[in-house]
Amino acid sequence: MEIGLVGLGKMGFNLVLNMLEKGHRVVAYNRSPEKTGKAIAAGAAGAYSLTELVEKLAPPRAIWLMVPAGAPVDETLEKLAPLLSPGDTVIDGGNSDYRDTLRRAKEWQKKNINFVDVGTSGGTEGARHGACLMAGAGGEIFARLEPLFKDISVPGGYIHTGPPGSGHFVKMVHNGIEYGMLQAIGEGFEILERGQFNLNLQAVARVWNHGSVIRGWLMELAEKAFAGDPRLDKIKGVMHSSGEGLWTAETALALGVPAPVITTSVFMRFRSEQEDSFAGKVVAALRNQFGGHKVEQA
Amino acid sequence: MEIGLVGLGKMGFNLVLNMLEKGHRVVAYNRSPEKTGKAIAAGAAGAYSLTELVEKLAPPRAIWLMVPAGAPVDETLEKLAPLLSPGDTVIDGGNSDYRDTLRRAKEWQKKNINFVDVGTSGGTEGARHGACLMAGAGGEIFARLEPLFKDISVPGGYIHTGPPGSGHFVKMVHNGIEYGMLQAIGEGFEILERGQFNLNLQAVARVWNHGSVIRGWLMELAEKAFAGDPRLDKIKGVMHSSGEGLWTAETALALGVPAPVITTSVFMRFRSEQEDSFAGKVVAALRNQFGGHKVEQA
Amino acid sequence: MEIGLVGLGKMGFNLVLNMLEKGHRVVAYNRSPEKTGKAIAAGAAGAYSLTELVEKLAPPRAIWLMVPAGAPVDETLEKLAPLLSPGDTVIDGGNSDYRDTLRRAKEWQKKNINFVDVGTSGGTEGARHGACLMAGAGGEIFARLEPLFKDISVPGGYIHTGPPGSGHFVKMVHNGIEYGMLQAIGEGFEILERGQFNLNLQAVARVWNHGSVIRGWLMELAEKAFAGDPRLDKIKGVMHSSGEGLWTAETALALGVPAPVITTSVFMRFRSEQEDSFAGKVVAALRNQFGGHKVEQA
Amino acid sequence: MEIGLVGLGKMGFNLVLNMLEKGHRVVAYNRSPEKTGKAIAAGAAGAYSLTELVEKLAPPRAIWLMVPAGAPVDETLEKLAPLLSPGDTVIDGGNSDYRDTLRRAKEWQKKNINFVDVGTSGGTEGARHGACLMAGAGGEIFARLEPLFKDISVPGGYIHTGPPGSGHFVKMVHNGIEYGMLQAIGEGFEILERGQFNLNLQAVARVWNHGSVIRGWLMELAEKAFAGDPRLDKIKGVMHSSGEGLWTAETALALGVPAPVITTSVFMRFRSEQEDSFAGKVVAALRNQFGGHKVEQA
Repeated sequence: MEIGLVGLGKMGFNLVLNMLEKGHRVVAYNRSPEKTGKAIAAGAAGAYSLTELVEKLAPPRAIWLMVPAGAPVDETLEKLAPLLSPGDTVIDGGNSDYRDTLRRAKEWQKKNINFVDVGTSGGTEGARHGACLMAGAGGEIFARLEPLFKDISVPGGYIHTGPPGSGHFVKMVHNGIEYGMLQAIGEGFEILERGQFNLNLQAVARVWNHGSVIRGWLMELAEKAFAGDPRLDKIKGVMHSSGEGLWTAETALALGVPAPVITTSVFMRFRSEQEDSFAGKVVAALRNQFGGHKVEQA
Repeated sequence: MEIGLVGLGKMGFNLVLNMLEKGHRVVAYNRSPEKTGKAIAAGAAGAYSLTELVEKLAPPRAIWLMVPAGAPVDETLEKLAPLLSPGDTVIDGGNSDYRDTLRRAKEWQKKNINFVDVGTSGGTEGARHGACLMAGAGGEIFARLEPLFKDISVPGGYIHTGPPGSGHFVKMVHNGIEYGMLQAIGEGFEILERGQFNLNLQAVARVWNHGSVIRGWLMELAEKAFAGDPRLDKIKGVMHSSGEGLWTAETALALGVPAPVITTSVFMRFRSEQEDSFAGKVVAALRNQFGGHKVEQA
Repeated sequence: MEIGLVGLGKMGFNLVLNMLEKGHRVVAYNRSPEKTGKAIAAGAAGAYSLTELVEKLAPPRAIWLMVPAGAPVDETLEKLAPLLSPGDTVIDGGNSDYRDTLRRAKEWQKKNINFVDVGTSGGTEGARHGACLMAGAGGEIFARLEPLFKDISVPGGYIHTGPPGSGHFVKMVHNGIEYGMLQAIGEGFEILERGQFNLNLQAVARVWNHGSVIRGWLMELAEKAFAGDPRLDKIKGVMHSSGEGLWTAETALALGVPAPVITTSVFMRFRSEQEDSFAGKVVAALRNQFGGHKVEQA
Repeated sequence: MEIGLVGLGKMGFNLVLNMLEKGHRVVAYNRSPEKTGKAIAAGAAGAYSLTELVEKLAPPRAIWLMVPAGAPVDETLEKLAPLLSPGDTVIDGGNSDYRDTLRRAKEWQKKNINFVDVGTSGGTEGARHGACLMAGAGGEIFARLEPLFKDISVPGGYIHTGPPGSGHFVKMVHNGIEYGMLQAIGEGFEILERGQFNLNLQAVARVWNHGSVIRGWLMELAEKAFAGDPRLDKIKGVMHSSGEGLWTAETALALGVPAPVITTSVFMRFRSEQEDSFAGKVVAALRNQFGGHKVEQA
């Protein structure tokens, strides 16, 4: 089919290649024109403005956004709104907050433009060679897009989760689980590393990927990571985060669901981004007050 | 090779079948004679006492224990001690606490009997068709047993972790990570279940196993679990535990490693086993005291 | 001074008594007229409608709301809006979310009506005999109300926290800390109760209030609670919550502040309100799948 | 009465002054003789060896140890053993692990020497002017020592918790609760500090000590700490720990009591002592592997 793709970052560019490989016609646009040029070189039709992008697509159009969550999505949507026609479809394939998606879907419904949210997992490699797609969409629209979803995902790797918003909701929870799994894996390897046995961590990750209960892609990646840097001496333990874990925690709070593990994983990321901790200063100061315990000077 | 196997529970019996299939001679013993009978029927040589077991093995013997951790291991070892000879090998293939293993290995070293600990993962199916083995052993002994380890594990699924104790240590941490992963998965599905979208949880688990970042064996099992009981209405959310998560938490505390996620997972298991919580009573009573908030009568 | 008080629940009624005792003129209103009658009997001027309340106060008026957080506050404010005049002051003395307060203060600023938020701690007894007040207000307005704040708080027990919103913000964090303290106390007493010593918990709480590091009002209340019910057999450990802990957790997430203890306290409250846990069902089902561990039938 | 005191650190020396002030005869000993000299100057009888200490006390003797937990206690006890006689009493007033105390009490019972454990709270000021004492002791021995306990504690500030071991058990849980309270306070103030209002933290701590639900000694100390350093700029947020929180966590694990808040508080202390986190490195490396997220170079 024919698809417009807006946003040619790591994920978006790989999706373009993936779609092209499967025989789809892709009109690609990026704010900075160099990336559009690269997409053209790879076989896509290119557009140097959203107007051009829309003009190059035959109605009913399908435009896939792969731009950072938050303001960039809203800005892009605002620019697209006057260019599109009833019956067109906008697909937000990024990591948007499902609460934003619910709001946007409502607004676009008034314009009779379909809003579809696609949670995309599998990382950059997945985007290139077969992703995992969680799509929230009206039933008819999903059916229309299904051939595309099928082509760019791994076999079995797409799902219609329900109405708009549900795709990003399911993807958010996926990432929340990922936060908990990653933190559990991190804690486990730290215990291995600090224990009394001088373990080959790469070999441990490898064996755990062969028949153990915790085998999975994350453990395969752990093996790769240790292969290149056996004690991870080259990197810092700063764990940034992009929002989905935080939103999962917020959603758990709003729903009254106990989610201490996912949420604590988010907090350990925050802690890793701090050079020093104000909470720690308070506790150190109080210990000094009541017990005369020494404090370290800043 | 020739091996004695003590303890024909779910795991032990499957290991016997696995070893037999690979052409090893197995002398099998279980406290209750029926299971020994079953092992004989399956092709094993049987023994109805530890003495008989030892007699039926040619020195240097290798005896694999698959008995519950704790006292049963110590009791079995105590009975075996006078029957064995220097140069023999005892393998503890159960989920023993590595601190017990360190103690036992030291004691048996004095007898010039090799002590080997094998952490075994992969569940009952793994035991039957290919497990994941983490073996702590002296180098020479490991080499002697390696052909057996290779045969009964999945390809790539065994490792020499280091000296005795290290196998159970690595297996313990494996299970600690498993606790964290399971709790993260549980929290995630509870959020899915409580959220506003009426999701097909089996379908979600399935798609997550096709290309997503969190794909792995646990998620495959989740798909199976929801297949049989879409909302898990048939079972209670009581999460028992067998010790390794708790030991991982203790080890983290002893090593000074922050492990809030693994440890909180253990505590959520404890909580699930309580009908009511004394901590909760205290908090409810205090809220009533200061704010007049209603308490529920027991 | 003269003050209107809207909402004669436990807290509001006690505040009326407190204000009257200090010589203030109070015009009291409650949706259900019986409570207004009681306030009249206690010496207040009464009003049976908001219109009557406003009429009975001389401009510039000061009206103190003591109604439940959320919709009730908005509803009351909506009804008050057309009745008030520029220069009047509305005081929200309830446990409102400070983010709501920020929004409301902005709206009322447009009407030239002062909006003041007062976080009130100390429970019902504090409301009656001396509360702890955290007031967010413009400087001039705070000065005008300060005599009232001084009269109804314990000596030293009021503060000007800053502009509107800051009072509820400080009160929210106060309650967040309270959640963490309560959970820590609950966990501690559960360990005492489950340990091997047959302890007199009331006596322990009492001695901890005499010279220990953790002495404080909550521990005094613990002593009282155990005095009436030594093992808290009469009550259930269900810990309800009214919002501030949850908002503190949300605020920590929004600010990037690691707050695992406060947030886990919130989650343990949620857990105590569940008969069974879906997360627990998932974990139990998965343990059954991989290890054949028994599940309990629902 | 007459008492021997071994260990003249901050706590021990203050206890000597406290006992002297109440008219008790104290024979004081410290490994380094200078401190013994100081105690003599303050009015104590001094001893420059344990032998001298024992000789200067009339049987049945009572010897109060105030030495660091762990090996120092065992070493002192070993040296005292041959010097003491049946009927004498050894009091461990330090922060010993109650499991060590149970073991020691058993050993000393064989010698017919009474073993008493006294958990001491209230910090250095408490030791000097009135502590909070939790004593585990046989009933007769407690009665014999009660006048001393009464004199050196604040009014109401001592308790007979039960048999030996129970004093340190109750003190351990006291400290566990303290860990949770401190972390909750720390988190709360970090939220205050990072929030949008430019708050005077000292003033907030002060008002919270006047009528609020969370008033208590720790909050009074917070006020003092902020008085000297309004943003705690002078100190680092490194939170050391001395063992009791860790033991409380271990005990909760052993008893099957959910204690996520106390235990997470311990883990946040560990985290604060780390320059970098290995768990963090693992998570950062995995995020880089699957999503191409940038890692920070070490």
